[in-house]
Amino acid sequence: MIVQDILDGNRRALSRFLTSVENRRELVQAELTELYQHSGNSHIIGVTGAPGTGKSSLVTALVKQLRMQDQTVAVIAVDPTSPFSGGAILGDRIRMRDLSGDKGVYIRSMATRGNLGGLAIATQDMARVLSAAGYDIVLIETVGAGQSEVDIVRLAHTTLVVEAPNLGDDVQAIKAGILETADILVVNKCDLAGAEKTKRALNAMLELGHPTKHHDDIEIMWIPPIVETSTKTKSGIDQLVASIHDHRAYLSDHNVLTQVRTQNLSDEFYQRLQVSLFKRFVATIDDNRIAGIINRMAKYEIEPQQGVDKLLAEIDFIQSQE
Amino acid sequence: MIVQDILDGNRRALSRFLTSVENRRELVQAELTELYQHSGNSHIIGVTGAPGTGKSSLVTALVKQLRMQDQTVAVIAVDPTSPFSGGAILGDRIRMRDLSGDKGVYIRSMATRGNLGGLAIATQDMARVLSAAGYDIVLIETVGAGQSEVDIVRLAHTTLVVEAPNLGDDVQAIKAGILETADILVVNKCDLAGAEKTKRALNAMLELGHPTKHHDDIEIMWIPPIVETSTKTKSGIDQLVASIHDHRAYLSDHNVLTQVRTQNLSDEFYQRLQVSLFKRFVATIDDNRIAGIINRMAKYEIEPQQGVDKLLAEIDFIQSQE
Repeated sequence: MIVQDILDGNRRALSRFLTSVENRRELVQAELTELYQHSGNSHIIGVTGAPGTGKSSLVTALVKQLRMQDQTVAVIAVDPTSPFSGGAILGDRIRMRDLSGDKGVYIRSMATRGNLGGLAIATQDMARVLSAAGYDIVLIETVGAGQSEVDIVRLAHTTLVVEAPNLGDDVQAIKAGILETADILVVNKCDLAGAEKTKRALNAMLELGHPTKHHDDIEIMWIPPIVETSTKTKSGIDQLVASIHDHRAYLSDHNVLTQVRTQNLSDEFYQRLQVSLFKRFVATIDDNRIAGIINRMAKYEIEPQQGVDKLLAEIDFIQSQE
Repeated sequence: MIVQDILDGNRRALSRFLTSVENRRELVQAELTELYQHSGNSHIIGVTGAPGTGKSSLVTALVKQLRMQDQTVAVIAVDPTSPFSGGAILGDRIRMRDLSGDKGVYIRSMATRGNLGGLAIATQDMARVLSAAGYDIVLIETVGAGQSEVDIVRLAHTTLVVEAPNLGDDVQAIKAGILETADILVVNKCDLAGAEKTKRALNAMLELGHPTKHHDDIEIMWIPPIVETSTKTKSGIDQLVASIHDHRAYLSDHNVLTQVRTQNLSDEFYQRLQVSLFKRFVATIDDNRIAGIINRMAKYEIEPQQGVDKLLAEIDFIQSQE
């Protein structure tokens, strides 16, 4: 029933269900399994960028532009600085209000807590539900200065990395690991004087070491375009949307979308496996045994990795045959 | 022999060994175990802050100030934007040169790759080796806009969170999860006009929700001071060092240092356990079995979490009795 409500576009049912996914996921596995079969039709866009790049305003402008093209959009804001997220205690909520009357837009924020891959997994669950709910675009927004944020946007079909001029040192916001995940590079705040310099630096980085995006063994001959935008002068947003469409067309023209999807699923599988395995293992181990090891670590009697190896050496994995 | 060389302060032996720790850790477990017993005497300081806060220059100034007080300092730069790290391809290397002639300073950069807790663990290994090598202070520098960066600095005795004025929206750099890890809040670039506003925002945040730092069940009645610094006008660095000493004195006066250490070791134990367990498990499972599950996921036949649960349901953990 809740599944049908979500498929039918009932927003209240959707919101309620997403809360269950966030808080008590194990109780809604059956519903998630059913929804999964309907979750393959959205284009998933990841947007990441350091604080100060104006990423949140850009996302708002992007959503408006997509709406003008009659595409429905769901936004997952995994970003405490976002106006969409609860973390923005003192933040500007006006931008959010700009979009809130529109039935074709759904906005959901995620807490940035959760550790060791848990957040990326939860985001992925939510993106699937929103996809099943029929949104053409699911846009995942995250602050991209850390590994966990890269893990989140890595699961998107198209990833935008947002930069801006004058953020301290020229290269400060350009991080190798994050740049590599980019399908489209955005120089936001392009009305500012330093924009040309930022663009040149990005171009240099692209030429140096990241001419194409690699999905492990899949080589994709896509060179990330650099798009200049300004939410202040309202320029470049249409080009940005055009680049997103180009990338999507590229993926399907070259039949790479399926391969990208399989690679993403594989990454996701291992992330989920690590988290679930750990939970299950810890539940089977006597707490006192672990406390005893930590106590000996504290007394400098066992080195930490030695303590872990010791515990694991006493365990056998017994698997039934298929 | 390498252990004795490190304990004797042989820098070349230290560098060589750290490379082994980074690349082939499993081969140097015996040496790490021996060094662990000598690793308890340093004060570990974590420094984190978003790009644009001037954190790297601040760290350089901080190291100089600590050297004037005759303390030896090792720096681990886990930050691609740092002048100390290999990631700063186009970066300013002058600041690094400022310190490089000094025998009382040792600088080491870490790649920001590694995932799901691996980086925090590797950093912790390195910090221990540097501590055993006799450095009074081990300073861990990381870009702090993500969960993995919080994991890294969380293992320090004293954590500095660096903010700066005018980074986009006022609250943009103030993230709840990161603020909570702070023992000392630094408003860097305090010569800029917006500094007072940033300080007020931080104060408001402290009053709102984070009056004291909690280490799980240990309550520490330490209210993070807000220290204003400028590397441009060279002001506030001495106060910052004084605050660090205050925090250290506070921890030992209140006998909390041991408790903090045990809590940190516990966190570290579980991080290591998750990573090691996963490695060991994946090594025992037939690749084809996993490929089969991923293939069924790609065909929408199995939902991803269902696939993981299915695999785990077939496994038993058998533990020998102690």
